[in-house]
Amino acid sequence: MLSVGNSIVLFELLGVLAFAFTGLIEARKKGMDLVGVYTVSMITAFGGGTVRDLLIGHYPLYWIQHSGYALMLLGFAVASAPLAASFYENPCVTNTVEVLDATGLGLFCTAGASVAHQAGCDFYIAMLLGVVTGVFGGIFRDIICNEIPNVFRRNELYATCALLGSAVFLGGLQLGLDTLSATLAGIAVTVALRLLSMKYRITLPF
Amino acid sequence: MLSVGNSIVLFELLGVLAFAFTGLIEARKKGMDLVGVYTVSMITAFGGGTVRDLLIGHYPLYWIQHSGYALMLLGFAVASAPLAASFYENPCVTNTVEVLDATGLGLFCTAGASVAHQAGCDFYIAMLLGVVTGVFGGIFRDIICNEIPNVFRRNELYATCALLGSAVFLGGLQLGLDTLSATLAGIAVTVALRLLSMKYRITLPF
Amino acid sequence: MLSVGNSIVLFELLGVLAFAFTGLIEARKKGMDLVGVYTVSMITAFGGGTVRDLLIGHYPLYWIQHSGYALMLLGFAVASAPLAASFYENPCVTNTVEVLDATGLGLFCTAGASVAHQAGCDFYIAMLLGVVTGVFGGIFRDIICNEIPNVFRRNELYATCALLGSAVFLGGLQLGLDTLSATLAGIAVTVALRLLSMKYRITLPF
Repeated sequence: MLSVGNSIVLFELLGVLAFAFTGLIEARKKGMDLVGVYTVSMITAFGGGTVRDLLIGHYPLYWIQHSGYALMLLGFAVASAPLAASFYENPCVTNTVEVLDATGLGLFCTAGASVAHQAGCDFYIAMLLGVVTGVFGGIFRDIICNEIPNVFRRNELYATCALLGSAVFLGGLQLGLDTLSATLAGIAVTVALRLLSMKYRITLPF
Repeated sequence: MLSVGNSIVLFELLGVLAFAFTGLIEARKKGMDLVGVYTVSMITAFGGGTVRDLLIGHYPLYWIQHSGYALMLLGFAVASAPLAASFYENPCVTNTVEVLDATGLGLFCTAGASVAHQAGCDFYIAMLLGVVTGVFGGIFRDIICNEIPNVFRRNELYATCALLGSAVFLGGLQLGLDTLSATLAGIAVTVALRLLSMKYRITLPF
Repeated sequence: MLSVGNSIVLFELLGVLAFAFTGLIEARKKGMDLVGVYTVSMITAFGGGTVRDLLIGHYPLYWIQHSGYALMLLGFAVASAPLAASFYENPCVTNTVEVLDATGLGLFCTAGASVAHQAGCDFYIAMLLGVVTGVFGGIFRDIICNEIPNVFRRNELYATCALLGSAVFLGGLQLGLDTLSATLAGIAVTVALRLLSMKYRITLPF
């Protein structure tokens, strides 16, 4: 989704991996077969970016143009089969999913805000589309896996973290930061706020 | 969505407001926080038009091009917080939502049919896309708020009202009415039929 | 969706009919009224192709360009009303739906892979989009009708059949088969595997 530099391509890849793994793990925990596991990991990894690209008419879609991602995720889905049993009742798996999900949220909301910004959206809409990119993959994953989406849980912050992360990224760009620094700042704010809100049960006052 | 005249822009704005308020009220009734309330009011107000625009490839989307709407709805969502308690058990709130929803349905089905018509769709498809524009915002709102969407309730008419409203609007245009008159006629038919069907429990015979 | 030859147009029409009838029957079984029945049959028939076309930005959509299909389905929805009672507890209706659904799956996954292939997608993505075209109509139908989508049932194969059918079609093209032969081979593989997997409860090993 980004062409600004190699470091950004790396962030993109890391976001796809982080979200794909959360999908993989949740689907295996639910006892899905290979087709289900692959579908959930694909939709988690590419759902948010796809919704954003449809909303701004940004074609071709990333995963359709670069079929290597879809093939890589197929490899992971197959490889996860022998590990499936260990996912069922391992408490540290839940923690891993939460950290991966927070990381993916940070990577995707900044990447999403960047794509929307480059497509000519103004500050506020680019910020909203950063949130859309960050949260929709996880919403789809949780709906298919019959979980309450994180974004609708009232005892912690989720969309708010992505909103602030996107705002920091876009504000950084406007203040003259280079893309890499602005991205790192946005990711840091998102991940830190998300993990703190889970640990200390921070919620919105109204 | 419309550029035919200032009166039409006003109808558009009124439709957005009517639907946004229904979303605001339903989300506050469910005890959602600011992020939830804002999301529901945005999706109710712009969901139907977004689905229509994706189906006909009509870019840029209205709310993405005019970010003022999204900011205005943010203001309403914040302002609704101190009023939230009064929404919980007030019977007149339910009536207000129903009248606003009927009004939004009429405004959006005619506006939607008009956009589709101008995009080159024929009479029947423009009529269907008018219905899509009118009903999808409310469907999304009711699904997120865990209500049965109005459109699937069997003891009253909903999509049928939008269908007739769109047909009256498009038929009026073909009979030589000016856009304003055709729009007013379409809105009147939709709202009247909707309110009558709720009051007298009118349903389809089969 | 296809312009390769008249035989392909015929397959397209048959796929629309097969899926539309499954939607019609399921919606009548649930006691929906005319609007509900029409909506379900439209979404079942055109949902998969619409998702594919949105993903590759392929406009105008088939059913929007050819409004005759939407009108034909309206005729079927009206005509199904007097037959509705016979749908409720007839065991042979269930079998008919399953065979129609398998046929629609085969027709649509090959047609979908063909459209994606012609739009420039590579082999693997075209195969995935063939599956998307085949399965999404039925997923939408089953969600609206409150059934578990076939694709998520663990005691039989569904998406796997569409995947193999798309692969056979695309592989056949690459091996030099003409479009008609490749399509027929893809359909045959999909339908045969689907019916065998239902009869003998074939599932994926992991």
